[in-house]
Amino acid sequence: MTENPFFVHPLAIVETRSIGEGTRIWGWSHVQEQVSIGASCNVGEHCFIENGVKIGDRVVVKNGISLWEGTMIGNDVFLGPHAVFSNERYPRSGYPKTYEPIIIEDGVSIGAGAIIAPGVKIGRYASVGAGAVVTRMVTAHALVHGNPARSKGWMCVCGLKLPSSDGSVSVVSCTCRRMYSISETECKLMQEGA
Amino acid sequence: MTENPFFVHPLAIVETRSIGEGTRIWGWSHVQEQVSIGASCNVGEHCFIENGVKIGDRVVVKNGISLWEGTMIGNDVFLGPHAVFSNERYPRSGYPKTYEPIIIEDGVSIGAGAIIAPGVKIGRYASVGAGAVVTRMVTAHALVHGNPARSKGWMCVCGLKLPSSDGSVSVVSCTCRRMYSISETECKLMQEGA
Amino acid sequence: MTENPFFVHPLAIVETRSIGEGTRIWGWSHVQEQVSIGASCNVGEHCFIENGVKIGDRVVVKNGISLWEGTMIGNDVFLGPHAVFSNERYPRSGYPKTYEPIIIEDGVSIGAGAIIAPGVKIGRYASVGAGAVVTRMVTAHALVHGNPARSKGWMCVCGLKLPSSDGSVSVVSCTCRRMYSISETECKLMQEGA
Repeated sequence: MTENPFFVHPLAIVETRSIGEGTRIWGWSHVQEQVSIGASCNVGEHCFIENGVKIGDRVVVKNGISLWEGTMIGNDVFLGPHAVFSNERYPRSGYPKTYEPIIIEDGVSIGAGAIIAPGVKIGRYASVGAGAVVTRMVTAHALVHGNPARSKGWMCVCGLKLPSSDGSVSVVSCTCRRMYSISETECKLMQEGA
Repeated sequence: MTENPFFVHPLAIVETRSIGEGTRIWGWSHVQEQVSIGASCNVGEHCFIENGVKIGDRVVVKNGISLWEGTMIGNDVFLGPHAVFSNERYPRSGYPKTYEPIIIEDGVSIGAGAIIAPGVKIGRYASVGAGAVVTRMVTAHALVHGNPARSKGWMCVCGLKLPSSDGSVSVVSCTCRRMYSISETECKLMQEGA
Repeated sequence: MTENPFFVHPLAIVETRSIGEGTRIWGWSHVQEQVSIGASCNVGEHCFIENGVKIGDRVVVKNGISLWEGTMIGNDVFLGPHAVFSNERYPRSGYPKTYEPIIIEDGVSIGAGAIIAPGVKIGRYASVGAGAVVTRMVTAHALVHGNPARSKGWMCVCGLKLPSSDGSVSVVSCTCRRMYSISETECKLMQEGA
C-alpha cells in the first residue's frame, strides 16, 4: 500500500483518485468520483466539486465554493473565498435541466464572493473583483467589477492593474516589467519581464 | 422498526421527523426539530434549516443555504447554490430581535448567490437572477436582477422568459404554449399549454 | 480536569484555548490555534476563523463565515449570515501574498451576504446592508448599501436608522432617545438616552 502523493483531511470526502501530487483537500469538503484535480492545488473547507469538473495545476479554491458539473478550471487559477458558480440559466424545480458550463482559463483570479453566471467564459489572467456578478464573457487580462460586472481596466499576469492608456492602441508596462499592447477591446502580452 | 421513507446522509444532523417521502438531505447539513419538509425535496450539503421553517414538496435547496426561523417555502421552489436569506432588518448584537420572515411562493426560482432581505415576499413563479439583492416584494412571474433587484421582464411557469410586450396590456405566449396576459404591473396565466 | 467555561459543539474543530466565558462554537466550524475570541460570543455553523484573527466580546458570527488572518473584530459586532471577508487585494495563484487586514469596530452590524474588500475599516456602529459590496472605509454610524456600497444615512447605537437632516449640521434624536449631531460627513453621539 503506497501513500497518496496528495493530502486529504480526515473529515473530507474524496471519491476521485485523479488528484495530482502535492494537492491538499481540507475538511468538510466533498470531491466526487469523476473529478480531475491537478498538482499543487489547495481546496479549502466546505467545498463541493461535482462529477464532471476538471481543475488544472496550482489552483487555489478557497473556502465554501461549489463547482458544478461541466466547470473547467485552467492552471494557476485563484478562486476567492465563497465565490459562487452555477450551471443552469433557467432553473425550475421539476423541469429538465439545461447545463451551461463555466470555463475559467489559466491565471484567472476571482474575487471573494463573486458570482459567475452559467455559460460564462473568463479569459486568461482576467481578474474578477470581490462581489462582482459576471453575466457575460470576460476578455483575457480584463479587470471587471460591479453588478452586472463591467470592464474597469486591464490586469498583468502578475496580478497588478496595468496603467491605463489614453489613445486608441498603445503599449504599457507593468512594474514587473512585462509589456502589453492595449486597445479598447483587447490586451496582449508583448514581452515577458527581463 | 420501519425504514424512513426519506434519505438522510450519515454526516447530516436531522432532528425533525416531519419529512416527506423521497426527500434527501445531504452531508454536513443540519435540520432542526421544528422544521417541516415536504416530499421529493433535495437539500444539498452545508445547509442549515432553523426551527420554524416550512418547506413544501419538490423543493430544491442547493448547497450552502441557511433558512432562518419563520421562512416559508412553497411547492416546486428552486433555491440556487449559496443563495442567502435573513430574517432581521436591523440586527444589533445585544438588542432584541425583530423577525421579518421571508415568504417564497410556489414555483419560484432563486439564482445562485442571490440575497433575499428580511420580510420580503416573492410571488409565484417569479425568478430572481444570480447575485440579485432583493429588498422588496417581487410580483408573481416577475424576473428580477441587480443590486437592488429591479424587474426586467416576466417568466413562464416553465422557467423561460416571456417575450416582451410593447403596448399597455397584451397577450403573449411562451414556446411551451402557455399564454399570459401582461400589463406593466402584472402577468397572469390565461391558458395552460395545449 | 475543569470544564470549559465555553461551549464547543462536538463536530467543531477548535484549536485555540483563548475563548471567553459563555461563548459557543457550533458544528462544522474550525477555529485555528492563534485566534482569540471574547466572552458571550456565538459562532455559527460552517465557519472558519484563521490564525491571527481577534474577536471581542458579545460578537455574533452567523453561519458560513470565513475570517482571514489579520481580521480584527471589536465588541458587540453582528456579522450576518454568509457575509464574506477577504484579505488579499490582488490575489494570483503562485505570486506572493500581500495581506490587507479588515478592521470592524465596536457595535458594527454587517448584513447577510455582504462582501467586505481587503483593507477596509468599518467604523463604530456602522451598518452594512444585506448584499452590499464594501470597497472603502465606512464612517462611524454610517448606513451603506449597494455595489459598490454608498452611504445612505446614519444609524443609531440601537440599530435603528436616524431621521435625516436637511441642513448642514443638525441635531437629531432616535426613538430610543439617544441624540446625535449630524453633518454631511459625520455623525456623533451627543447624549445617551434618558
